Amino acid sequence: MNRPCHRYDGDVALGTGYDQQGCFLARALEVVGERWTLLILRDCFYGVRRFTDLREHLDISRAVLTDRLDTLVGAGVLTREDSGGHPEYLLTEAGLALWPTIFSLSKWGERYTSGPHPSRIFSHAACDTDVDDSGRCRACGKTPGPDDLVVSLGPGANAMRRSDRVARALENPHRMLTPISATADSTAG
Amino acid sequence: MNRPCHRYDGDVALGTGYDQQGCFLARALEVVGERWTLLILRDCFYGVRRFTDLREHLDISRAVLTDRLDTLVGAGVLTREDSGGHPEYLLTEAGLALWPTIFSLSKWGERYTSGPHPSRIFSHAACDTDVDDSGRCRACGKTPGPDDLVVSLGPGANAMRRSDRVARALENPHRMLTPISATADSTAG
Repeated sequence: MNRPCHRYDGDVALGTGYDQQGCFLARALEVVGERWTLLILRDCFYGVRRFTDLREHLDISRAVLTDRLDTLVGAGVLTREDSGGHPEYLLTEAGLALWPTIFSLSKWGERYTSGPHPSRIFSHAACDTDVDDSGRCRACGKTPGPDDLVVSLGPGANAMRRSDRVARALENPHRMLTPISATADSTAG
Repeated sequence: MNRPCHRYDGDVALGTGYDQQGCFLARALEVVGERWTLLILRDCFYGVRRFTDLREHLDISRAVLTDRLDTLVGAGVLTREDSGGHPEYLLTEAGLALWPTIFSLSKWGERYTSGPHPSRIFSHAACDTDVDDSGRCRACGKTPGPDDLVVSLGPGANAMRRSDRVARALENPHRMLTPISATADSTAG
């Protein structure tokens, strides 16, 4: 559990002094602090693995997505694997360990930047019970990892209806980390 | 607990589509996703309140710091208050609620971007006992809020020795949210 990922020393400079803070928060931000990066990783937790799916679901440019994926692979947060001619991006152990950060920041956004209705609900698969805002299962009291969570649409999801393949797959309850490609319809590449 | 902070609608555009993700993580990143913002907030949790102290400790430009503080005040994460002619920046309820995000991302940076030695150690003031990587007190099992935590230098702190007023104040165990100005030496502004 304690293995460091590759030390990030790419050339995506983050401003004078940023990486000299001698602080692990600053080092973490060197890896995941660029625009879009946490949203890309969130999609990976949902089971999105392919470049095309990420690009369509996030609606970002090919160049930015390529840059961010290269950074994340270089930092040991994602691996790029070949799957029948398609490259797929998978979370490593270091990537999976970012779940508490992504979950707590999502919950903060839900509580403080909008109304009271969550757009996505996370439940503990083993107990079929929602987790609370700290991520703890309301039934068993444990804090499930992402591999034991199911994500479903919440009552605040109306405004976010999108029509891309990933969005359609996430309209139904989806076991996290399960590849979207295995659950989405088969009409798209 | 459920009051939303002011909806952020500043003009710091975060790229096409970023704010149209209909996702609370994206909305959270609109507020705290800019470079330096989480580091500024981390310092606020340490008790730093003054512009000059933030600027010296973070070693960032006056223009960037001004921009980030304006954004955070506008979003209801910080308040700007007058204290004897000096403006001071204080975390609001919405700002305090960002602690789990900052803590978990710092812990991730500590574990995955460097060696095994933490640069800062957080302990539960009531129990005088360190918290674990999930933020839970190893004695009582509770997860203390930032107002019940003490931050101290850890064994990995050697590389981060700095000489500014905030760094000097944080060389000794420091109750979080306690103003740095009340504990630092009196020779500086």
